[in-house]
Amino acid sequence: MITGKNYIGNVLTSTGKKTFKTFNPQTNQENDVTFTEVSDLEIEVALELATEAFTTFKTTSGAKKSEFLNEIATQLLAFGDTLITIYCSESGLSKERAISERSRTIFQLQTFANLVKEGSWVEATIDTENLERTPIPKVDLRKMLVPLGPIVIFGASNFPLAYSTAGGDTVSALAAGCPVIVKSHPMHTGTGELVAYAVIKAAEITGMPNGVFSNLNSSGIEVGSALVKHPAVKAVGFTGSISGGRSLYNLAAKRPEPIPVFAEMGSVNPVILLPNAASIKGVHWAKKYANSITLGAGQFCTNPGLILGTKGEDLTNFIKNLAKEIIKIEPVCMLHPNIIGAFENNTSRMQQQLGLETIVNYTKDTFKNYGSQIITTVDGATFLENTTLHQEVFGPFSMVVQCENVEQLAIIISKLEGQLTGTILAENELESYSEIVNALQNRVGRIIFNGVPTGVEVCDAMVHGGPYPASTDSRFTAVGINSIKRWVRPFCYQNWPNILLPYELKNENPLNISRLVDGKQTTKKI
Amino acid sequence: MITGKNYIGNVLTSTGKKTFKTFNPQTNQENDVTFTEVSDLEIEVALELATEAFTTFKTTSGAKKSEFLNEIATQLLAFGDTLITIYCSESGLSKERAISERSRTIFQLQTFANLVKEGSWVEATIDTENLERTPIPKVDLRKMLVPLGPIVIFGASNFPLAYSTAGGDTVSALAAGCPVIVKSHPMHTGTGELVAYAVIKAAEITGMPNGVFSNLNSSGIEVGSALVKHPAVKAVGFTGSISGGRSLYNLAAKRPEPIPVFAEMGSVNPVILLPNAASIKGVHWAKKYANSITLGAGQFCTNPGLILGTKGEDLTNFIKNLAKEIIKIEPVCMLHPNIIGAFENNTSRMQQQLGLETIVNYTKDTFKNYGSQIITTVDGATFLENTTLHQEVFGPFSMVVQCENVEQLAIIISKLEGQLTGTILAENELESYSEIVNALQNRVGRIIFNGVPTGVEVCDAMVHGGPYPASTDSRFTAVGINSIKRWVRPFCYQNWPNILLPYELKNENPLNISRLVDGKQTTKKI
Repeated sequence: MITGKNYIGNVLTSTGKKTFKTFNPQTNQENDVTFTEVSDLEIEVALELATEAFTTFKTTSGAKKSEFLNEIATQLLAFGDTLITIYCSESGLSKERAISERSRTIFQLQTFANLVKEGSWVEATIDTENLERTPIPKVDLRKMLVPLGPIVIFGASNFPLAYSTAGGDTVSALAAGCPVIVKSHPMHTGTGELVAYAVIKAAEITGMPNGVFSNLNSSGIEVGSALVKHPAVKAVGFTGSISGGRSLYNLAAKRPEPIPVFAEMGSVNPVILLPNAASIKGVHWAKKYANSITLGAGQFCTNPGLILGTKGEDLTNFIKNLAKEIIKIEPVCMLHPNIIGAFENNTSRMQQQLGLETIVNYTKDTFKNYGSQIITTVDGATFLENTTLHQEVFGPFSMVVQCENVEQLAIIISKLEGQLTGTILAENELESYSEIVNALQNRVGRIIFNGVPTGVEVCDAMVHGGPYPASTDSRFTAVGINSIKRWVRPFCYQNWPNILLPYELKNENPLNISRLVDGKQTTKKI
Repeated sequence: MITGKNYIGNVLTSTGKKTFKTFNPQTNQENDVTFTEVSDLEIEVALELATEAFTTFKTTSGAKKSEFLNEIATQLLAFGDTLITIYCSESGLSKERAISERSRTIFQLQTFANLVKEGSWVEATIDTENLERTPIPKVDLRKMLVPLGPIVIFGASNFPLAYSTAGGDTVSALAAGCPVIVKSHPMHTGTGELVAYAVIKAAEITGMPNGVFSNLNSSGIEVGSALVKHPAVKAVGFTGSISGGRSLYNLAAKRPEPIPVFAEMGSVNPVILLPNAASIKGVHWAKKYANSITLGAGQFCTNPGLILGTKGEDLTNFIKNLAKEIIKIEPVCMLHPNIIGAFENNTSRMQQQLGLETIVNYTKDTFKNYGSQIITTVDGATFLENTTLHQEVFGPFSMVVQCENVEQLAIIISKLEGQLTGTILAENELESYSEIVNALQNRVGRIIFNGVPTGVEVCDAMVHGGPYPASTDSRFTAVGINSIKRWVRPFCYQNWPNILLPYELKNENPLNISRLVDGKQTTKKI
């Protein structure tokens, strides 16, 4: 079923010379299919098709786009176990995880389908004319959000479905009316082709223009660079490492016409364990965090990699309990030998840092490519001085920083780089730590009270982003319906004839959407 | 009254060595006051104060911010003619223009004061918890927009009040809760100091923290570069030339922590004169455009610098009528000898281009520094081949392109760079030119039917921005209440105790703002 070819619009082709295979980390063997890297010519054709598709897709109705997105969901489900099997063989993740991630992907597709079908997301805003106004009559002005153009999406290694080929970035861009060119992830290219088949089939069934979606294989960085530099591309979505995201950002910023890059990158997701919480609930949180740190082999953007507390018996006990709990957990397979290689390099670099003590290093025999959890600790002064210790280790790793006092804790927080999340664990003491809370708010996109940062709800109020380097632009989110805002711009019609206005802005409000008319939010006609 | 010093927070200082003066283009003489360029030390202090001010200003209530903005308006009006006189002496603009620009500035201040007093602009969004949900209970998530931090604003030469010291960029940033550091414009530094005095006085009267506003003098590019590179700065607003805006964008993109730069830059604001309009209303539009091109000596971002039509008798007559009308108009003073110098260089570079014919070159004797209007014409093929002809000439200059046919017209539009506005002049023919309209929409932020692009209404539905190089990020606008979105990011609280939530997100909805609660827009409490 998997051909190893690229979808250039609706057509499978493989004119390139370079090939590669994906790898099954559970069996420690290459998978069978040979993938052909996309050629320069195929890139050109994909972008020409996307540009052409945009001329009609940009004004395709919300109802039609909704059919398209729902049909992608139907097609994904129609694969049944085939998709799950390939997913597992290319990621080392469990069948349960595959099924739950598929559910999330389906939910995202349906959420955006509902959003565009309802239609109010375009923020239609109308200021009617006032010919009597002096000294100058007021013109009629009508604004709505319109799509930017073809978007390039780079899938995430750690979410082969929900943040890859037809994941959150792709779906939000398609919902906006932007054609999407996916640079398929080299670790799960087969899963990617299968999902691409579903998208293409859905596009054909629902009458979307050829070029609305392409899926390009590549194992190196050249294809991604070529895409970001291409004048037909109008924005970029990326989930991955800081170095990868920043490289794409730099390329985009240097273009003759710079374009927005939304890169969701690394994060250590600091957790502040306040004194009462350590004293009263230390055992509880130790267990919760042992699970959160090892969940999915720690391969989540929101994995808690840094726990900050103040020195003392309660923190010492917390560390002991965390060690006791985490050692009980059986390691699981990581995504790819490259991922486990990086994990091992990063943990060993950390362990070489002066003053860092390793509390737990799960050393029982495990299968090849399984990630053994590591817990370390360091004092506040050492952490402050050595910024290497501030860096993310992608995998089941966490560091407990024992601060001298609350003042040092506040200083450490203020020196941290931008983060996706920050968590405060507190027992009837939060009011007394407003300075800590304030400092943490400045550094993060989401702040959590008495919980774990893993688990990112897809809903209206979610923010998955944050100050650099958590993301390249803290004004946007990668998860939730507002993620569509990354791919649209406001567009204004002045004195435009009603008959030629888009439905969203016509006097009659034929779509019955909520609009801001002369300062009042209403579904009424004018 | 004007000291020539810098406002470093609330204190006037001048520890720098470099000095400069502003220039009165009407009298062709330097003005009296000597301004001292801000020193490196003063820059550091201004940014330290702004960073410190942000810790409280970011959570200052909408009611208090509203008082602050309204008080700035009161203080500006309190200057009476003093402000108008200085404005005129530093810009060469008329007293009537000064008064109307002051009104616009006051209106902007009041508009943002009302916006933050009402409070719903923060887009409060609440998804309540659902402990019964399976397989995982749903957490409580609450989101609102929060300010980014200290913002650097570069004022525009052509709007000494409405797009400078306390103009749209500054006011939208202050309304958002961001301290502002203004890099004062060297052409109207005295006007800037007077306005800064009003802002500082208003800050003191309404109890805003010292550092919420600073006003830094400089005549070169070094101060601006230092500000954009400074780690304490979190975003930049700029209005001016493409080269200036792009330089700042490049500096910001190269920072270790890149920051958003919203630069509103040049535009030729293409106008499409369709055949029936040329035939039936040619005389009417010739007169309208003669006025629009020369309004304020053509020194508007939305000045119509390019008129596109199809070759033939009607277009020839339009050009003749435009020439006849525009020659009647008395030239007016331009902003500064540098501006008129650039205008003369740019027009002469244009006139040297092969195939460009000058139709009108107002050559009657005018006062020194007055800008004489120039109308040129060229055929479509020549225009297509020579991109020098696509560039903006800031001043009373316009070019009529005589296209071979509608197909060539469409190609030309698709080859234009991004524009603030595009205009279509049509008489019962718009339906037949959907391809032209489509192509134009792709290139602009605002599209106008049967009007002139000059005149930018401050209202909800306005878009003043557009694809690059009209702006550095087409997803935002520089005019209208949505301009506040440039300076804010979404921030999410998870399971946060109600008592410690900001007022905007508390169950009781004490501010009575409109919120999205579990998918429904409402002012109800939870």
